[in-house]
Formats: sequence, C-alpha cells, structure tokens
Amino acid sequence: MTEKLPVLAIIGGTGALGSGLATRWAAAGYPVILGSRDPEKASAAAQGISGVVAISGTDNRSAAIAGEIVVVTVPFASHRAILEEIRPAVSGKIVIDTTVPLMPPKVATVQMPPEGSASLAAQRLLGEQVRVVSAFQNVAAHKIQKGEAIDCDVLVAGDDKAARETVIALAAAIGLRGIDAGPLANSVAAEALTSILIGINRRYKVDGAGIRITGRFATTTD
Amino acid sequence: MTEKLPVLAIIGGTGALGSGLATRWAAAGYPVILGSRDPEKASAAAQGISGVVAISGTDNRSAAIAGEIVVVTVPFASHRAILEEIRPAVSGKIVIDTTVPLMPPKVATVQMPPEGSASLAAQRLLGEQVRVVSAFQNVAAHKIQKGEAIDCDVLVAGDDKAARETVIALAAAIGLRGIDAGPLANSVAAEALTSILIGINRRYKVDGAGIRITGRFATTTD
Repeated sequence: MTEKLPVLAIIGGTGALGSGLATRWAAAGYPVILGSRDPEKASAAAQGISGVVAISGTDNRSAAIAGEIVVVTVPFASHRAILEEIRPAVSGKIVIDTTVPLMPPKVATVQMPPEGSASLAAQRLLGEQVRVVSAFQNVAAHKIQKGEAIDCDVLVAGDDKAARETVIALAAAIGLRGIDAGPLANSVAAEALTSILIGINRRYKVDGAGIRITGRFATTTD
Repeated sequence: MTEKLPVLAIIGGTGALGSGLATRWAAAGYPVILGSRDPEKASAAAQGISGVVAISGTDNRSAAIAGEIVVVTVPFASHRAILEEIRPAVSGKIVIDTTVPLMPPKVATVQMPPEGSASLAAQRLLGEQVRVVSAFQNVAAHKIQKGEAIDCDVLVAGDDKAARETVIALAAAIGLRGIDAGPLANSVAAEALTSILIGINRRYKVDGAGIRITGRFATTTD
C-alpha cells in the first residue's frame, strides 16, 4: 500500500461505535483523530488505541478541521448541535453520518425526524458543499468496540457516487461489506432498521442482530 | 393438521406477488379467493392454481367480504382507491399490506408518502377496527410466482402482537421466516428496503436480492 490514506476525524469518538471504528481504522493504517466535547477524554481514548500511524484526541471542531473525511458518531439528541459546531470545518469534505434517530424511551419504534431521516437532516444543515454519506447504522456498536466478528452488511447511501465508493472502501478496510444503497434519501431504510434490530435483540434474545443482503452479486464495487 | 385454516382473500390477486402467494398458500391447504378489478381475470387466474382446497376468483370487494384475512398486493398507484373499495368489508379483520410506495420512474429511490409509509396510510384509511400488518415487501415477486427458493426474511410489523404472530405463521406455512419487527411505524424499513433492493439488482446485477436478519435467535415465534 503506497497511497497516502486520508486522515479520519471521528466526531463523538469516545463512544462505543466511534472508538470501535477508530480502533479498526487505526489498525488498518489510517491516521485517526478522535473528537469529543471533552478534549481530555478524547486524548485519553486516543492513548488507549494502538494504530499503525498517529492517533490523537481533541475537541470536535478541531478534529473536524484536521480530518479529510469526517465521521459523525453521536447520539441523535446531540446531532444537530454538533453538526452546527463542525459545519464551518467540513465544507468540501465527505461527512459520514452514522446517526440513528433513536428517541428514548421508545428506541425500538421508528421515529424519523421531519426531514425524513437523520442523514437528510444533516445534509440540509451542512449544505450542498458537503457530501453526506450515511453508513454503519446497523453494525452492533459493542461488537465493533470489542473487535468481535460482525455478520452485517453496511448500507451506504449518499447523493455522490464517488463518495459512496470511498465509504465502501473504508468499510472494506475494516472487514465489512459495504453495499451501494443509492441516494441519501435511501438512508431511511438503514436508520429504521436499527430500531427493528433493537426490538429483535430484545424479543428473540439475540446478541447484536445484523442484516445481510442476499443474492449473487455479479459485479461489486468493493 | 386438524384446525380449520382461515380463508385468505388476495386483493390484486392476478399480479406476480398476489398470484404467487395464492399458489403457495393454496398448496399449503388454505382456502384462497383471488380478487381483481376484472373478476373474469381473477377467475381465470384461480383456475390456473391447484390447491388442496377451493380457490376462486371474483372482484376485489367480494373477495374482501369472503376473506377472513385480507392480503393487499396492488401497485401503490391503486393503493388508496382499492383500500377505499374494500374498507366496508374488512372491519374486525387482519389486513396484510404488502404495498411498497414505488413512484416511477425513480423506483430505486425511497419516496415515502406523507403518512410515513404505505402501511401507515392504509391503517389511517381503514381505521382502528382493522389490524393492518405489513409484510412480504422484500421477497422477489417473480421468485414467489415461479416457485423458486427464496433467500429472504419477511419483516412483519403491526400494532397488534397477535396479528403479527398470525402473519408470521402464514409466512412459515409457505417456507418463509417471518420476523416480528414491532409496531406498524417500523414498516418504513421494509418498504424503503425494496427500493434499495431494486437498486442493488441493477447495480450489482443480482437476480432478486433479499435481506436476512443475522444473529442467533434464542427464542422464536415461528
């Protein structure tokens, strides 16, 4: 691998999904910067991750400035405020939004925001200069974090095909099959599925249910 | 099997999904009535199906009256009109809605109706006396019709748990794994997935992609 890998900023990088993704991408050779509301927590989390290259922690805005690709892994309750915080830093960049609009206490019931989905809300808020790509909603965060095997495809939706392909490659770098799921409007499927998976985990006592797309893929972009 | 199986009315029963489901349920011993706007077409289709018990064809309203469980398999463009037509006939019954709100020409882009999903629109239109259950959106209609093996789970959503279990049993009767997906609000996931599967079929040249829920199910209702 001779190409220079892009710097990944993980916003909300101290959570289960954020730190888990950071650990896997760092192991795959990507420079990673963790962002957090609490820069010291981000620093401490970064020190706990061993990567091929540099890993550091800072506040969310500084991480977004430093990142070439910005990954948002925050609870829905903080989604809007954090997007507003990083907006000045992400123009022209790919923003990977992993957010699921879970609204406690009924997290097993789909409740989409008025924009149609969390990712559509992000795109509207960040503006056209940002290529929002929705992904990683359905992978069990605790499995990512613990480094367990993950029996789950990653539906990748976004209005820019090249950006979707970049995210599919990022999924492949950590052993996940990313699937081109089309335009950002399609993100609602992955976001809604997470509530269903939470319900399935409870109802059928599954440890981290996931989804797979079936069928013989004659062509693939990953 | 000594219990008496309920009569199933398939509204839009001459289409690929409707006639395919009818064929499989008839083979499993269910009495089936096909409904169509054109009663003669329904009659002809019924004669082409060999079942364990009676199969007949008639108009949609008559089929809905005769059915103990009513299955709606119509294009989204006819959804509202046909629901209004059968509404007087379905009070107190389970209505299984298989409808996906596909809006040509962009059928690979998710476009939910203002009610949030086709099934939520059906529930609102039919009223509280009807138990709407959403299911079968993701199974490839042509595979159902041809009797091919289907590598796809059936997400079953509805506000009444007993009704969901009835539909899970109906899926099991034709060899499909139905999964309790929670309240009717969750139907948006299955409806949206169909547009994604259509896109995947095109993009990756798959013959009828489907979905599977992964993970070890410790308990199961089917």
